Amino acid sequence: MEIQTVLTAPGIGDLREMEGFFRVTPLDRVFALAKDFGVVETEHIPIMEAVFRILAEPIVAATDLPGFARSTMDGYALSAASTFGASESNPALLEITGEIRMGKIPEKRINPGEAMRIATGAMMPEGADAVIMVEYTEEIDPDSLEIYRSVAPGTNVIAKDEDFKQDTLALKPGTRLRPQEIGLLAALGHTGVHVFKKPRVGIISTGDELCEIKETPVAGRIRDINTYTLSAMARAAGAQTVSYGIIPDEFEPLLDACKQCLSESDMIIISGGSSVGTRDLTLSVIESLPDAEILVHGIPVSPGKPTILARAGGKQLWGLPGHVTSAMVVFNRIVKFFLESLSGMDPSFTREFSIPARLSRNIASAKGRIDFIRVRLYPGEDGVLTAEPVPGKSGLIRTMVAADGLIEIGMNTEGLEKGEEVAVIPI
Amino acid sequence: MEIQTVLTAPGIGDLREMEGFFRVTPLDRVFALAKDFGVVETEHIPIMEAVFRILAEPIVAATDLPGFARSTMDGYALSAASTFGASESNPALLEITGEIRMGKIPEKRINPGEAMRIATGAMMPEGADAVIMVEYTEEIDPDSLEIYRSVAPGTNVIAKDEDFKQDTLALKPGTRLRPQEIGLLAALGHTGVHVFKKPRVGIISTGDELCEIKETPVAGRIRDINTYTLSAMARAAGAQTVSYGIIPDEFEPLLDACKQCLSESDMIIISGGSSVGTRDLTLSVIESLPDAEILVHGIPVSPGKPTILARAGGKQLWGLPGHVTSAMVVFNRIVKFFLESLSGMDPSFTREFSIPARLSRNIASAKGRIDFIRVRLYPGEDGVLTAEPVPGKSGLIRTMVAADGLIEIGMNTEGLEKGEEVAVIPI
Repeated sequence: MEIQTVLTAPGIGDLREMEGFFRVTPLDRVFALAKDFGVVETEHIPIMEAVFRILAEPIVAATDLPGFARSTMDGYALSAASTFGASESNPALLEITGEIRMGKIPEKRINPGEAMRIATGAMMPEGADAVIMVEYTEEIDPDSLEIYRSVAPGTNVIAKDEDFKQDTLALKPGTRLRPQEIGLLAALGHTGVHVFKKPRVGIISTGDELCEIKETPVAGRIRDINTYTLSAMARAAGAQTVSYGIIPDEFEPLLDACKQCLSESDMIIISGGSSVGTRDLTLSVIESLPDAEILVHGIPVSPGKPTILARAGGKQLWGLPGHVTSAMVVFNRIVKFFLESLSGMDPSFTREFSIPARLSRNIASAKGRIDFIRVRLYPGEDGVLTAEPVPGKSGLIRTMVAADGLIEIGMNTEGLEKGEEVAVIPI
Repeated sequence: MEIQTVLTAPGIGDLREMEGFFRVTPLDRVFALAKDFGVVETEHIPIMEAVFRILAEPIVAATDLPGFARSTMDGYALSAASTFGASESNPALLEITGEIRMGKIPEKRINPGEAMRIATGAMMPEGADAVIMVEYTEEIDPDSLEIYRSVAPGTNVIAKDEDFKQDTLALKPGTRLRPQEIGLLAALGHTGVHVFKKPRVGIISTGDELCEIKETPVAGRIRDINTYTLSAMARAAGAQTVSYGIIPDEFEPLLDACKQCLSESDMIIISGGSSVGTRDLTLSVIESLPDAEILVHGIPVSPGKPTILARAGGKQLWGLPGHVTSAMVVFNRIVKFFLESLSGMDPSFTREFSIPARLSRNIASAKGRIDFIRVRLYPGEDGVLTAEPVPGKSGLIRTMVAADGLIEIGMNTEGLEKGEEVAVIPI
């Protein structure tokens, strides 16, 4: 089935009617579908390799952390009561009974009127409940310490369970492991950890106009960009990707590629031409897959309206528009959320922060759809971060290269005004 | 040399004097040192592997992109002049002379009064300068097209050089390659690209109190967290890391580890105990390295004041505080910038965006230093994003696990007030 067949065979009148059936699915209903696809399997990997992976098991503190009271300062361990009333004019005099070796158990206990030298990080001796900093003391001889300030119990000490108490839930499954969570795993003695596997994303580009990037395209052809942008975005979102190459706009080859991809991937992304013909081809191929169901055909988003989401064999298939910018915007705003869900990420970690900026000029927008406008950011004359819309058609890669982010214009908004504060989503 | 030697041998009085020499380096002077360390070497890698790597060569468009005029819509290619004056009540009548096959050179040219069927993405025929959308037309018979609207020249057409003109500089060296830049490389026919190598960061943990994470620490000892947090942060910032393990607080072993690390790494990070003794040990080891120079010893930052930056053999060595939070804050706010510089990243790509939030309570701060406060973010009752300071000592990993970001309190600020808008740096 080729594009011109569509333009002639159903007839332009039929096409007009088909547009009527092209009903968009509200985005909240689209996002609600993510939970229907489950999550990938898990694997056990060294924690050093686990940064930004998604935790697949609860982590419970097996012991108190740090497990013993530690000094947080260089100074003298003592009983706080021995310092009460001490001042510059009326110093307390304590006996220095020794020093605590770093990493060792203190050799003796502290009694009232006694102090031991202690360094930052060393273990507190029994009987001591505070550390006084070197700065507030003076050794008048090797055995005698003058103290010029009183300290409260607990001063400059980390209690034995101050980081984590034994049996506390330290990390929940679904946590995205930042460097600090890797550190916590290390602190609790985990050399390896169960994480969700990286989802396998299969990427198919369709289009008789496409050629491999290593080729010099003849007139009428362009290189296949989407395989590269979508693979890069999927990898940046934590997936592993396999490219299934460029498939011509024909039923059988596309069906075969989809079947192979289904058997090998957790998610399939087909980026098609942006013509009605190629969209219909993608749809009829998806409908021919075993156990297939079209869930979404059309979203109220520009660019990106002709997006398709389907399920086949329990896996998700996306049909993204062929225009490079449209495909990237839909990936960023929608597919990424599904990928994170598939990755086992708890929704509380999927949050995304936007950057406030001041809009440099008016932007018009149609009601009834969400517009995503590419903007570049720069500091304005008064230092306020300014968002300047990047002009250009959605088939141009340079508009995405020039852009620092996207701004969203809501369904019920007819446009934004120059000087308005906008929230910029980094891309 | 062990910690208690320092506490006794130089004497407390000497220590007080040494504190006087512990002069902090203003941060602008610290950051200015980054350019003195040069950049790493380059390598040629497939573009599919190059996402978020740093470009090491200029990319110039070898040809116009897309190289031919293309339709951006399903419709009819024509000369715009043939539509002038057309309306619903007074349609223009054109002859349909054929259709353009996707990916092919059009078989004929368009003359005034003629139109050819064209799909989104197909090549424009000679003589055509616009595309009219299907919606504004009707085929009254297979050879005749009625047109209900006039279009301007250029409508629904991407010009042959609209994405990039031949010989234009498309990407500059130092660019961080996002998915869209990978797409641009694909569009321009680059299957591989020269990027800067990932800097090799050698990580050394020092401290007699540390044990390997696989061990169950005896009383007085804790597991080595910093190797893991700092490796994870360095990897997240684009480096490859090698751990040199836990080195005891002794001169010779630390010197040997530093020498080996210097010969194998582009940057060395030593995270030491936080006591004066271990800091002095790190300093004297660094000073003993061939061709060594201490550039910074102390920064006006809390946590993180005792940070050391040195150069030896042209390479940079960092001495970071041992407290896990202090080391992470200094890495995030300072070391990362040096790592990006070493990675060849143009400073315009090192920008970092912060998230505005409303402070949940007053925070006190001392003048004369920059305080970084850990905060967690949550939507307040009125939906406004709120930043809640995370209480806890800088030796506690849980404070970093609980935190979503840092807020900075400047040198000349004595504190921040509840309800103030603050800029949160994600961590």
